[in-house]
Amino acid sequence: MPVESETQNAVSVAIQGEPGSYSEEAAQALLGAVIACRYCRTFEEVFQATEQGQVQHSLIPIENSLAGSIYKNYDLLTRYRLRIVREANLLIQHHLIGMPGVKFEQITTVLSHPVALDQCEKFFARFRHLERKSAYDTSGSVKEIIENGMTEYAAIASRGAAEYYHGQILMSGIQDNDENFTRFLLLSTQLEVSDCANKTSVVFSLANAPGSLFKSLSVFALRDIDLTKIESRPIPGRPWEYLFYVDFLGNLGEVRVKNALNHLAEITEFLEVLGCYPAAPPRG
Amino acid sequence: MPVESETQNAVSVAIQGEPGSYSEEAAQALLGAVIACRYCRTFEEVFQATEQGQVQHSLIPIENSLAGSIYKNYDLLTRYRLRIVREANLLIQHHLIGMPGVKFEQITTVLSHPVALDQCEKFFARFRHLERKSAYDTSGSVKEIIENGMTEYAAIASRGAAEYYHGQILMSGIQDNDENFTRFLLLSTQLEVSDCANKTSVVFSLANAPGSLFKSLSVFALRDIDLTKIESRPIPGRPWEYLFYVDFLGNLGEVRVKNALNHLAEITEFLEVLGCYPAAPPRG
Repeated sequence: MPVESETQNAVSVAIQGEPGSYSEEAAQALLGAVIACRYCRTFEEVFQATEQGQVQHSLIPIENSLAGSIYKNYDLLTRYRLRIVREANLLIQHHLIGMPGVKFEQITTVLSHPVALDQCEKFFARFRHLERKSAYDTSGSVKEIIENGMTEYAAIASRGAAEYYHGQILMSGIQDNDENFTRFLLLSTQLEVSDCANKTSVVFSLANAPGSLFKSLSVFALRDIDLTKIESRPIPGRPWEYLFYVDFLGNLGEVRVKNALNHLAEITEFLEVLGCYPAAPPRG
Repeated sequence: MPVESETQNAVSVAIQGEPGSYSEEAAQALLGAVIACRYCRTFEEVFQATEQGQVQHSLIPIENSLAGSIYKNYDLLTRYRLRIVREANLLIQHHLIGMPGVKFEQITTVLSHPVALDQCEKFFARFRHLERKSAYDTSGSVKEIIENGMTEYAAIASRGAAEYYHGQILMSGIQDNDENFTRFLLLSTQLEVSDCANKTSVVFSLANAPGSLFKSLSVFALRDIDLTKIESRPIPGRPWEYLFYVDFLGNLGEVRVKNALNHLAEITEFLEVLGCYPAAPPRG
């Protein structure tokens, strides 16, 4: 498998965004500081990088505790055949970052990913003269400002982005809500089930019959297996039918989990195990 | 209640987008051709228009059978105190629309709402030279092209938008998948339960206890009440806790529905009925 990095022994991982992004921070939290990151423009490219053997892992955000699921990535989990091997919850702290030497009073326009802009509503309510501009990436916004010497612009991004591009933090912790966490998933080509894995993710579709969702959840409840998340997404070409993504606490090696999944297979039209991995602490 | 329109007896309704949008088509399907539309830039303004008594109704898209839920509108259903009084499923047919007299060969750039652009992937794969540009609205894109005489641009929008702005349809039915439906909800300040209402929408949060989602769905299954949709959204400030939006078939006047909701109230922390209305035919 070809690995991009110059660094020997570095684990290679594809992420969406630029150096210093929250995804890179999550990758370091999961894989250590010595990683060879491949920076991709889209989530689709992140999935392709591992599927095509260019990197060992892909890392994706799947859910933010304020903004909700990253639905596109749920859809890609079904379209590609990667498996979840780890998860991490990252505390998201947004900072206002400008050119070195610039004063806050000079700033007229704030650049960032739309979700980051939305998470700083109170900041924009306080400083009403600031114009908001959408960008494809938080750390990419810092890069743009620094490289082009944009003295009237600031970006909303992570401390890591400020450090990487030598930007200046003009204001810290400007997010509306401090309980701002993003859950990231580390993906690989193969299912890996370690003994300490205690969380499993599955995706299934149901026969279109009354009570089928209830029956599908009963396979867990009847065996005292806790669900941590349920997400539904449309099945293209089959209006008002859904794929259900369910996370539950349990290891594939446990008898009650095996029984639950056998039982679930009786009820579902389609069923796939997406991964079995150690549950991350809820607050990172 | 002040109504904007000049037309007497016209029902007033707020929608997001410009004249000729899919929302306007849905409003006409539900309320007849004689409506006084208030065209809003954001969904938030659509909710506010009815809540502040400026119009009688708000109309919002809630779900597309290919792209999924319009999550922002689920969140606004909880933030505002409007109630669902009707629903409609609209077949979405996308057309490529340009200036009158323009030939397809002249077009270099295609403008539309990002969801509409995404729903025409096969079209863009066939005509690789065409550049895509995001806009806030489908019919607003037609307006922009016609008003500014942009001969190298075309928009993706409805037939209604082409007619309203006197644009020319260059290519018809360019969506990837013909099974493309959007479900719209008509909102009002008051709950209205007619005898022919057979669908109910509720929103609830659960005590954070094992099996609580299963128990909440059991109140319907135990009474043979069919669920048609379940959606979950994060509760801001309470990481990894969710609001559940559930649609089921039943009228609030039925004894089994009353019992189910009383039972549900035993399990939930928070429970609200969002509306009780006639179910629309699945394919419009």
